[in-house]
Amino acid sequence: MAYKALLRMSQLASFQLTITVLMQNQPATRTLRLEQPLALYRGDQIDPVCLAYECWGELNAARDNAILLLTGLSPGAHAASSPEDPEAGWWENMLGPGKPIDTHRYFVICVNSLGSCKGSTGPASLNPKTGKTWRLDFPELTLDDIAEASWQVVKSLRIEQLNCLIGPSMGGMTALALLKRHPNCARRLISISSATAASPFSIAIRSLQREAIVSDPNWQSGEYTDDRWPVSGMRLARKLGMISYRSAAEWIERFGRQPQEHFPATVYGMNFAVESYLEAQAQKFIGQFDPVCYVYLSRAMDWFEAGDRHQGSPARMLAQTSLETALVLGVETDLLFPLEQQKTIAKALQAADIKTDLHELSSIQGHDAFLIDMDSFAPPVAQFLS
Amino acid sequence: MAYKALLRMSQLASFQLTITVLMQNQPATRTLRLEQPLALYRGDQIDPVCLAYECWGELNAARDNAILLLTGLSPGAHAASSPEDPEAGWWENMLGPGKPIDTHRYFVICVNSLGSCKGSTGPASLNPKTGKTWRLDFPELTLDDIAEASWQVVKSLRIEQLNCLIGPSMGGMTALALLKRHPNCARRLISISSATAASPFSIAIRSLQREAIVSDPNWQSGEYTDDRWPVSGMRLARKLGMISYRSAAEWIERFGRQPQEHFPATVYGMNFAVESYLEAQAQKFIGQFDPVCYVYLSRAMDWFEAGDRHQGSPARMLAQTSLETALVLGVETDLLFPLEQQKTIAKALQAADIKTDLHELSSIQGHDAFLIDMDSFAPPVAQFLS
Repeated sequence: MAYKALLRMSQLASFQLTITVLMQNQPATRTLRLEQPLALYRGDQIDPVCLAYECWGELNAARDNAILLLTGLSPGAHAASSPEDPEAGWWENMLGPGKPIDTHRYFVICVNSLGSCKGSTGPASLNPKTGKTWRLDFPELTLDDIAEASWQVVKSLRIEQLNCLIGPSMGGMTALALLKRHPNCARRLISISSATAASPFSIAIRSLQREAIVSDPNWQSGEYTDDRWPVSGMRLARKLGMISYRSAAEWIERFGRQPQEHFPATVYGMNFAVESYLEAQAQKFIGQFDPVCYVYLSRAMDWFEAGDRHQGSPARMLAQTSLETALVLGVETDLLFPLEQQKTIAKALQAADIKTDLHELSSIQGHDAFLIDMDSFAPPVAQFLS
Repeated sequence: MAYKALLRMSQLASFQLTITVLMQNQPATRTLRLEQPLALYRGDQIDPVCLAYECWGELNAARDNAILLLTGLSPGAHAASSPEDPEAGWWENMLGPGKPIDTHRYFVICVNSLGSCKGSTGPASLNPKTGKTWRLDFPELTLDDIAEASWQVVKSLRIEQLNCLIGPSMGGMTALALLKRHPNCARRLISISSATAASPFSIAIRSLQREAIVSDPNWQSGEYTDDRWPVSGMRLARKLGMISYRSAAEWIERFGRQPQEHFPATVYGMNFAVESYLEAQAQKFIGQFDPVCYVYLSRAMDWFEAGDRHQGSPARMLAQTSLETALVLGVETDLLFPLEQQKTIAKALQAADIKTDLHELSSIQGHDAFLIDMDSFAPPVAQFLS
């Protein structure tokens, strides 16, 4: 059969797109509104700044059992369930009573990144000067700014110093930014699948994700509407994200060359299970993350350097901090933040005389392994925090 | 500065798009027009079929010194320069007098793949039934069909059996397809960075490239025009191609975190040298390859399996061939056709009692290394053919 005939039958299974980006905060979410405008690293400032965060466990009398969890690009503050909000969080198996990050023992704070769209101020928030959504009028955002905003949440809870700072993926870079700005912020660090600076390969992947979004005719220079959402750009961006987050080895095990039966098959459409998997992942994501926030956070990752021209090398920057011990976890199959970058982090910590353990994990889930492969990740985290 | 202000200054440097897809054949190109319609593997047939090819060296009296070179997805038949056409070809350093594929000794044929747009019949050719370009009316194309068409060129030159069959990338898969269809076609095989069947990871990457093209509003269900070419889809597809063809290690050496100065910089635009490199690569490619041909060839690679339900495993298929010796080359940093797949090819050949050498090369250029890293590729090819 000619493709054209197939094509006629083959409009991509249309799906109900529900824009839930500016979602109501979840039941356990608290919001801090900063009293002062937030001055940004690249100049300019934002006012007002609201930060959504969630807490688990109890702060002890000495106020020295706090852990700050900084997130990857897309998750919100709801890292785990709690009595107020029983819905499973994005790190449900890692965080909670008796879990590796044990909330019987620690007071854990997770902040939705400044610039994100899960309750914190960002390009999807209202710009009070114009009465409209910020969109591309939002100033240039860096991981330094996300770190600073997150630190304001810690300070608002009257915590002087964190017991531990935990950052997976972008969160690990944000943790380094926080250490750079506030050298005494923490006594311990857990860095997971992160980097002291983005590699050109990861910049290339992210630049393509952004290009897919801004090439979508509905992008409209950032002035898209709920009715005309840049769906095809976000779909491509998310699929490329999934390709970079997982690994070839996992997909051989999981999908092999199985055909798919969920979507109409065309020459350029979906023939294989791996394709329908990507489509399902994209459909889940598209309405839940704001395109312009995605672009801002993505670029912030490219720009980051742990040791910038002020502080010198990462090791020199880290030597000025109060860090005593660190745990660095990385995954052999991670394409986006490869093991080499974890070694670089560990070496910088060790060169700064910080007692550091590096674990090179053989998970097959690539960059996303920290969300999935608890058999590999739970033991070192539990041991480090015990 | 707000991004919006930057944005106003930042329309992507517009470039002169010259559509040279249906280019005039190059001076040394010959064309075979098949006398019969070509019956396709998935049913349907094509008529007429023209095949562009180029030859180097002299066929000896015994007609037993012929080499057939099958190409990757995008190159045409002009693999190397010759007296008739002094322009450098895509494998200039590998093929020629005194080079590893020595044209003093061998008669070398390179065929532009059926379905491509460099002189051979494909979706960009005229459909005689309608008087219009085939586009999506072109029947479903497989690597079996490309193999069969290429074999017709060999037969037209009155060659019964090839001295050697050489296939890099898609060409290696096409070589296996040819061996499956014509078991006595060759005495030797050089397989380079190829596979017995596409992995789900490479299917995922290619499916995204196709999706980028067909999501471009100018795609128009394949009815794009020279004036409204799917430029942004082709740009994304090519950039993703480059990401999958090269390696993270190469880009660290080559670009690191250098800024770029060739294009206007915006938050989502180009800040880093690796981004301007990708843009320059894309601009070169966009007007030179037909989008619908790209989609067809890309999907043909996904579909291919060296051992299909008729022939059983690749080893069983290969055991039925006249192959005596084989050379399998692969690259450690290849993401798209990883070393594991080269080992699979080599094992299948060995299991079929074909004397096989496998070289695992440590080039840092990833899948594209065979086009660039002659220090690694030239010696084993030269030795095998000497």
